Amino acid sequence: MKSLLTAVLVVVSFISSAQSSKINQYIFDQKNQHRWLNQYREFLTIPNVLGDSINMVRNANWIKDLMVKHGVKSQLLLSGKSGSAPVVYGEVKTPGATTTIAFYAHYDGQPVNPKQWAEGLAPFTPTLLTDRLDKEGKIISFPSDKDVINPQWRLYGRGSSDDKAGVFAIITAYESLIVSGLKPTVNIKFFFEGEEEAGSKYLSDIFKIHKDLLKADQWIICDGPRHVTGRKQVLFGVRGDVNIDLKVYGATRPLHSGNYGNWAPNPAMRLAQLLASMKDKNGMITIKGFYNDVTPLTEIEKKALSAIPPVDDILKKDLMLPQPDGDGKSMTELLTIPTLNINGIQSANVGAMAANVIPTEATAVIDLRLVVGNDVDRQVKKVMDHIRSEGYYIIDHEPTDEERMKYPLLAKVVKRGAGYNAQRTPMDLPLAQKAIKAVETTMDYDMVRVPSLGGSLPLYLYEQLLQTKPITIPIVNYDNNQHAENENVILQYLWEGIETMAALMRM
Amino acid sequence: MKSLLTAVLVVVSFISSAQSSKINQYIFDQKNQHRWLNQYREFLTIPNVLGDSINMVRNANWIKDLMVKHGVKSQLLLSGKSGSAPVVYGEVKTPGATTTIAFYAHYDGQPVNPKQWAEGLAPFTPTLLTDRLDKEGKIISFPSDKDVINPQWRLYGRGSSDDKAGVFAIITAYESLIVSGLKPTVNIKFFFEGEEEAGSKYLSDIFKIHKDLLKADQWIICDGPRHVTGRKQVLFGVRGDVNIDLKVYGATRPLHSGNYGNWAPNPAMRLAQLLASMKDKNGMITIKGFYNDVTPLTEIEKKALSAIPPVDDILKKDLMLPQPDGDGKSMTELLTIPTLNINGIQSANVGAMAANVIPTEATAVIDLRLVVGNDVDRQVKKVMDHIRSEGYYIIDHEPTDEERMKYPLLAKVVKRGAGYNAQRTPMDLPLAQKAIKAVETTMDYDMVRVPSLGGSLPLYLYEQLLQTKPITIPIVNYDNNQHAENENVILQYLWEGIETMAALMRM
Repeated sequence: MKSLLTAVLVVVSFISSAQSSKINQYIFDQKNQHRWLNQYREFLTIPNVLGDSINMVRNANWIKDLMVKHGVKSQLLLSGKSGSAPVVYGEVKTPGATTTIAFYAHYDGQPVNPKQWAEGLAPFTPTLLTDRLDKEGKIISFPSDKDVINPQWRLYGRGSSDDKAGVFAIITAYESLIVSGLKPTVNIKFFFEGEEEAGSKYLSDIFKIHKDLLKADQWIICDGPRHVTGRKQVLFGVRGDVNIDLKVYGATRPLHSGNYGNWAPNPAMRLAQLLASMKDKNGMITIKGFYNDVTPLTEIEKKALSAIPPVDDILKKDLMLPQPDGDGKSMTELLTIPTLNINGIQSANVGAMAANVIPTEATAVIDLRLVVGNDVDRQVKKVMDHIRSEGYYIIDHEPTDEERMKYPLLAKVVKRGAGYNAQRTPMDLPLAQKAIKAVETTMDYDMVRVPSLGGSLPLYLYEQLLQTKPITIPIVNYDNNQHAENENVILQYLWEGIETMAALMRM
Repeated sequence: MKSLLTAVLVVVSFISSAQSSKINQYIFDQKNQHRWLNQYREFLTIPNVLGDSINMVRNANWIKDLMVKHGVKSQLLLSGKSGSAPVVYGEVKTPGATTTIAFYAHYDGQPVNPKQWAEGLAPFTPTLLTDRLDKEGKIISFPSDKDVINPQWRLYGRGSSDDKAGVFAIITAYESLIVSGLKPTVNIKFFFEGEEEAGSKYLSDIFKIHKDLLKADQWIICDGPRHVTGRKQVLFGVRGDVNIDLKVYGATRPLHSGNYGNWAPNPAMRLAQLLASMKDKNGMITIKGFYNDVTPLTEIEKKALSAIPPVDDILKKDLMLPQPDGDGKSMTELLTIPTLNINGIQSANVGAMAANVIPTEATAVIDLRLVVGNDVDRQVKKVMDHIRSEGYYIIDHEPTDEERMKYPLLAKVVKRGAGYNAQRTPMDLPLAQKAIKAVETTMDYDMVRVPSLGGSLPLYLYEQLLQTKPITIPIVNYDNNQHAENENVILQYLWEGIETMAALMRM
């Protein structure tokens, strides 16, 4: 039996590598890569921040046109809610296939502050660099057809990694299969969202309206980065997420810091004191009960966790952080507990515009990441209870004169959107195993198996509304500046992402 | 003797009020006020932030032209330092006069962020309002010659109070004297600085170069606001001032708050913790030895302090601050001890541009006000020692990779300019008494006598370089948003300021 099994495995492996080489040839053909680079560059020039409705529709149509070009039956799905961006949906039925795989990516990006981008870069002017900006990467012209594309080049622009890369890789994987004469082995559904970065506010509406259309045996989410070691990885869950706007107040008008200094309370100082009270110096959260309702990891998850290659030393050097937060815990472990993070803080001005004033208000945006066991409202309540325990009266609006006079310490606390809880898929799910095997045909090492991403996606909606448990297979480099200025993707990761997605279409 | 003295006093008072009514007639003549309002409006349209050299010179020439128009011998004094704005100097010799009074004001303003100004207002588009913005003041057109100017109207614009008002009132007081047929009783020197808000960096150069030209028996500084009760006041000193830029660091690039949250230290949180460690919840400074080297008030100063009308209750209501800082001490008392104030704080973005990131750095600008006994360098050192005691390694430049890896807690601490110490003039100085009497001819109450302004001016330079002890007589309303957005002046204060300065020219 053993030799027979071996023989079967060899044949499977042989077939797989033959197919793989055919696809490989196509994907790593410089002629195709030149075309794709131009196409992707064009895609990244379309601004993709939710709220810019005209451009969001331009993005959606660009995606739809690309799918139609490759023969994919496509349509825009609308939530019917104002300010909502369309989902671009596509479908391919494969004769004889009994399994349907749905591929998810999103085309919207995080808000941008062009001023924060490095010189020569701009969010929606895709720019090619020889290497990472802080590793002496130089800006170069886009290659002509005769130039050789270096796979280590990085393309900078909003969405280049998060997550137009996912959209582009999925569609181009399908192109690659079709044009290179292979066929998918499964039915495929394409689902490209346009409001993920704004908390997927209307995704549930889309799921409810199009429940039947969106039925699939397995959803594969293509978002987030590959493992820090560069390895491909599969993730079985995500943290939940909710943002809070926090504002505290001083006098009703800005005051001369000399004429009022020592007497008029400074809201920037008050905010500093309030935020400082939420964490200790090791970065552990000191809010009462913050870590209490975390569901312990299962045995499989614990085992998987311990098998993940360690990243702390790599990251310490790469990010220049000799002493990370977390009280000595490993990064892998820290991603399985809830967070409280300051996204931004502002009061009056710094730099050349700074003036000798006592500001009128100070603002912070906080994000809470949640793990399985946490609940958005319960977690937000813990933060609010803490703010109250510091003596603040909480309001959800700008204070009235009466409120200012009645409550010396006023904090405006507003939850952004609804937020959402964490989600986890069992690590032994059969179709997930099949997907892993498919991806592993493109590699000579084992995929990294992660119980949960540190980041967030509203995957609980798939469980609740589509009764399915998704897995996440990301494709981009981890050092992509996702969510910030100078976002970028390494071209090699884009090409390998196409390869990964193509393998999944033949799982 | 008593009746003779009374008779003399009556005569003096009679002469004084006769002159006063002649001057009054001129100053409160609507025709003159229409002309002045247009002139002052034109003056305020010239941007006056140091660094904008072309406009600083335009301001200087505008002032010089106005003085020349009224027959004042004028010139620009230059420090010879690049980036420095000229001093506008003027001189009037009065036949028979034995006393020389020098009048100081400054024409530069604090930096502006036009975005922070209220709708309809802009720093350099002077705008007239019926009342204070937050008291339902409405924007109105500038009056035509036929309209009656309401003295309660407010003129909004950068410099409208601080301190183009001083420049304008001093020159216009001289105009009023001359045109209404009265004469100054003293020799007058006009001295209008252009870099006070930037710390009067080159004032000492001017003083050194023009030491003889600038000799005067009494310097009168026209800057800052009248007393909170609206009373005219005279100030015998100022606090010193120094600014510090403080920056702390996180990773070398912005990180996804999910993928790195709990592990990568957040510089905004670090800055919050560091700043919070500097003050207690009553706003008292907790830095070791911060209040130690304060010179106690003299008996005269203590007595004067206790005679100042209380302002706390007025300000609590006006500024909506039911519970001021200062551990129960009165505002008047709190202005006689040193401060530590956050001018501004920033890390990444808040509002619509906020993203789910862990920022790379967080910045604060701090200002320290100093009282007599404090020394700039000693006070800054206390702050730096405190930062070190919190575990930070202090640098004065952006960190190198080596420094980042060697010191987990890095703080960039940079003093802005040299800063300067406090200054105090004895409250029984004879010429000061004479000045007070002159101003009191324009009023039916006693001037408020204040040992020290809460704000700062580099008055120590007058002592050090000109061997003279200045006094400060301010003219504008206290609720003028000095140093911040929506700066404004009440027209009545401008007219009365002209009257005050005219009285001083006949002291």
